Amino acid sequence: MINRLTIIGVGLIGGSLARALKNAHAVGEVVGCGRNIEHLQNALTLGVIDRYETDLGAALHDTDVVVLAVPVGVTLSVMQSIKPHLDPKTIITDVGSSKGAVVQAAQQVFGDALENFVPGHPIAGTEKSGVEASFAELFHKRRVLLTPLANTSTAALQTIRQMWETTGAFVEETSVAHHDDVLAATSHLPHMLAFALVDALATMDDKVEIFRYAAGGFRDFTRIASSDPQMWHDICVTNDKAIVAMLDVFMADLERLRNAIKTGDSDYLLQVFTRAKKARDQFSMDS
Amino acid sequence: MINRLTIIGVGLIGGSLARALKNAHAVGEVVGCGRNIEHLQNALTLGVIDRYETDLGAALHDTDVVVLAVPVGVTLSVMQSIKPHLDPKTIITDVGSSKGAVVQAAQQVFGDALENFVPGHPIAGTEKSGVEASFAELFHKRRVLLTPLANTSTAALQTIRQMWETTGAFVEETSVAHHDDVLAATSHLPHMLAFALVDALATMDDKVEIFRYAAGGFRDFTRIASSDPQMWHDICVTNDKAIVAMLDVFMADLERLRNAIKTGDSDYLLQVFTRAKKARDQFSMDS
Repeated sequence: MINRLTIIGVGLIGGSLARALKNAHAVGEVVGCGRNIEHLQNALTLGVIDRYETDLGAALHDTDVVVLAVPVGVTLSVMQSIKPHLDPKTIITDVGSSKGAVVQAAQQVFGDALENFVPGHPIAGTEKSGVEASFAELFHKRRVLLTPLANTSTAALQTIRQMWETTGAFVEETSVAHHDDVLAATSHLPHMLAFALVDALATMDDKVEIFRYAAGGFRDFTRIASSDPQMWHDICVTNDKAIVAMLDVFMADLERLRNAIKTGDSDYLLQVFTRAKKARDQFSMDS
Repeated sequence: MINRLTIIGVGLIGGSLARALKNAHAVGEVVGCGRNIEHLQNALTLGVIDRYETDLGAALHDTDVVVLAVPVGVTLSVMQSIKPHLDPKTIITDVGSSKGAVVQAAQQVFGDALENFVPGHPIAGTEKSGVEASFAELFHKRRVLLTPLANTSTAALQTIRQMWETTGAFVEETSVAHHDDVLAATSHLPHMLAFALVDALATMDDKVEIFRYAAGGFRDFTRIASSDPQMWHDICVTNDKAIVAMLDVFMADLERLRNAIKTGDSDYLLQVFTRAKKARDQFSMDS
């Protein structure tokens, strides 16, 4: 049971976390904090938070856990802002999709006083954003990766683990570097491809025609291109090395596939398509 | 009303067409034909067809419409096989995803006697294949593109148009070349990206890890990589020029995006992501 939880940034992720914990009666009071009063008022009206504060001192007063649910790019400045108001007992966690940058920001702001910081990342989301899109079941049966540091306290880690388990998620621990590599492959790369594809088609001469003839497969394939541009900008800027490395692997593979199509290399085409289908079917069965 | 319809290749598309026409009482008898008796028996048991024939003469006897629902790569040989058994009144149509190759095959086999040939392509499907995956609503509110030739008879065109309209589809006519360009952009290119991505990840060292951490967005994005390898091989081989041209446009765009990530070009990243999101959101509203 968390007596008081403060969420900085009450959007899809922060809002869904609050809803899940409230549904499970696992939290006493949820305090929302953020820059946009209209969004906070919305969250209050929806019953996602119990009150909101625009003053950080009031938002962080006597709170047990503070969740940073903001785009990764503002993590550093948010950490700098909350530092003077933090109670020593307060546990800090975040939900960012690139952990290296978040940990670096935390080290810059808090130095070695990081016992109560538990970097986290729920691998869940939709292409929508905002508290209106939040729902209590978002994390159900999804993975949450925690990347504790050498001096993260066991108690703090345990509290954040329990918090996510309460939402129905499977919690796992991994290293910061491994997290960033795996996410570059499974999430950041696909988003880059979807954004690039839709943008390539949208800037063609007969784009209206093209989108008119797109079918269901295209809809599914490009859904993630509706994701929040600012959030994805921040992820690109903070996980740049891993994403560029994955893009280079992918682009070399795509180049080979292109050449096989150009030369009519049936064996190569069948081999790639068959291997991909097998892996994708296996993935469907496992998950 | 089509008195007798012969479907060569009773899989997802052929089976769904038969189901839709039967549901609408728009066909007298549906005759299935194909190489695999087990599949045909299955189609019969499921009530998708009324009888099946393995002999082409029997399958085509006194039939009004024959639908070639086979992979594009075997179109030529199937056309050669049916030619001696065709009744002059029989209308021929197909469902192939690359129309240039199909029309070329038809011209090679039938010469100028093409009045009763109506090239067609229902832009519908799922990543599944086989008659077991067929359902009557597959074409509902989907587009069917017909690419009639200069000497296609108006009566034949009208029959095929009505047939597809009966399934609930929106039927449009376009040119062979335009069809192949648009499909390369909206269907063939996305499939290449999905196949290449899943294959790139599947051949990595820690592929198990990687797929374990894939989330909902990845599932949607890669669903089309479960599509039939032989069918996609055939599409690549028959629409190679348009696909390679689209891949080249896309790869140049992706290279620019990669460089923007590498150099931290925030303006470029935000511009691409914002434009893509806007186009994708617009597409969702329109369709």
